[in-house]
Amino acid sequence: MYDYNRDAHAIYRDSFAIIRREADLSRIPPDLKALAVRVAHACGMPDVIDDLRFSAGAGTAGREALAAGAPILCDGRMSAEGITRARLPADNEVICTLSDPQVPALAKQIGNTRTAAALELWRPRLEGALVVIGNAPTALFRLLELIDEGVAKPALILGFPVGFVGAAESKEALAADSRGVPFVTLQGRRGGSAMAAAAVNALGQDH
Amino acid sequence: MYDYNRDAHAIYRDSFAIIRREADLSRIPPDLKALAVRVAHACGMPDVIDDLRFSAGAGTAGREALAAGAPILCDGRMSAEGITRARLPADNEVICTLSDPQVPALAKQIGNTRTAAALELWRPRLEGALVVIGNAPTALFRLLELIDEGVAKPALILGFPVGFVGAAESKEALAADSRGVPFVTLQGRRGGSAMAAAAVNALGQDH
Repeated sequence: MYDYNRDAHAIYRDSFAIIRREADLSRIPPDLKALAVRVAHACGMPDVIDDLRFSAGAGTAGREALAAGAPILCDGRMSAEGITRARLPADNEVICTLSDPQVPALAKQIGNTRTAAALELWRPRLEGALVVIGNAPTALFRLLELIDEGVAKPALILGFPVGFVGAAESKEALAADSRGVPFVTLQGRRGGSAMAAAAVNALGQDH
Repeated sequence: MYDYNRDAHAIYRDSFAIIRREADLSRIPPDLKALAVRVAHACGMPDVIDDLRFSAGAGTAGREALAAGAPILCDGRMSAEGITRARLPADNEVICTLSDPQVPALAKQIGNTRTAAALELWRPRLEGALVVIGNAPTALFRLLELIDEGVAKPALILGFPVGFVGAAESKEALAADSRGVPFVTLQGRRGGSAMAAAAVNALGQDH
C-alpha cells in the first residue's frame, strides 16, 4: 500500500498552498487571485499565472454576473462538464450548443468551424452572459466578430483556447481590444477546458 | 474581420505538422507517435513528449483492446466527455462511475477520495479494459492497489493525473512497476483530462 494523501480537502489545501508559495501573485488583483490559483491548479503549472492577461475588475464583473443569474456559455462540452454546479450562486444555466443539430449546416453557411458556428445559437443568450472559450481559437475570433456585428455584450469573456494554430493570436486579439468587455485570458499556446472551467469555478462560491 | 484559419481539417493538419517539427519524436516508438502528437496538441506544449513514459508495445496493446471491444474506464467526466466516440473502432463503452450514488459512502468506507472510491465500481469491468486516469492521483494509486489485491488486469493504463499533491508520485509509481500492465504516462505535475482523452483518441481510428 502506498503512502499518499487520501483526503480531498487536504489535497486541495496543500495544492493551493504550494501554488501560492511558488507563483508570483503580486501583480494579480485581489478579485482574480483565487482564479489565478485555480487555473494553475488545473494544469499543474504555477508559471501560467505569469501569462494571465485581464481587464481591471474582471473578477468582480464575473462574480456579479453569476450572482445575478447569468448563463454560462461554453464552446466545448469538456469545459461545461468541468464546471462544478454546486459552486454556482444562482443555479446558473451551463450551455454548450456544439452538439445542436443545426451546427454542421451553420458551419457550412458561415464558412467556419463547427465550434465557431455554434456561437450563432448563443445570440439570444449573450447579453450579460459568462462566455467560456476553453477549446477553439475560431470560437474566440468569432465571438469578437459577433460583438463587432452588434450582438449584445457578455458580462465577461474567459478566453482559454489552446493550441498551435490561432490560439495565441485569438487571445492576443482579445487582450488588445476586448470591445469594452471584461476579460481574462492566457497569452500563448497554453490553455484548455480544464483551465477555463477552473476559472469559472473560482468565480463561484465556496461550499 | 480577422484573418484566421477557419477550416477544421486544415487546423488539425497544420497543428500536427508544427508539433512534428518542434518536438523530438525520435525516441517514441511507431505505435505511440500519433499518441504523442495528440497529447501535445491537447495542451499546446510539444515538450510534454519528452516527459512521456511508456512500456514497449503499449500503443499496440491499446489498439488491440479497443478493436476487441474493451470498455474505457475514466476517473473523471471531463476525460469521458473528451473521447471522440466516432473514433472508437467497436462502439466501445465509455464508463465513468464518479457520479454513482454509492460513491460517497464507499469513499468513507475505504478512507479515500471519491474519485479513488469510484474505482470500486470498476471491478467487474476491469479485465482487459482501457483505464484512463486524467484527473486524480488518488485514482492512479488506488488502481495499483487494486491490482495488488488481485483484480483482473486491464489491457492498458493511460496515467495522466495532474497537479501538485501525488500526481508526480503516482505516475512515478506506475512507471516504476506497472504490475506487467502496458502503460503510458507523463512524468511530473502536468497532465489532465484533455491529454488523457487525446491519448485515447489517438488509439482510435481516423475517420
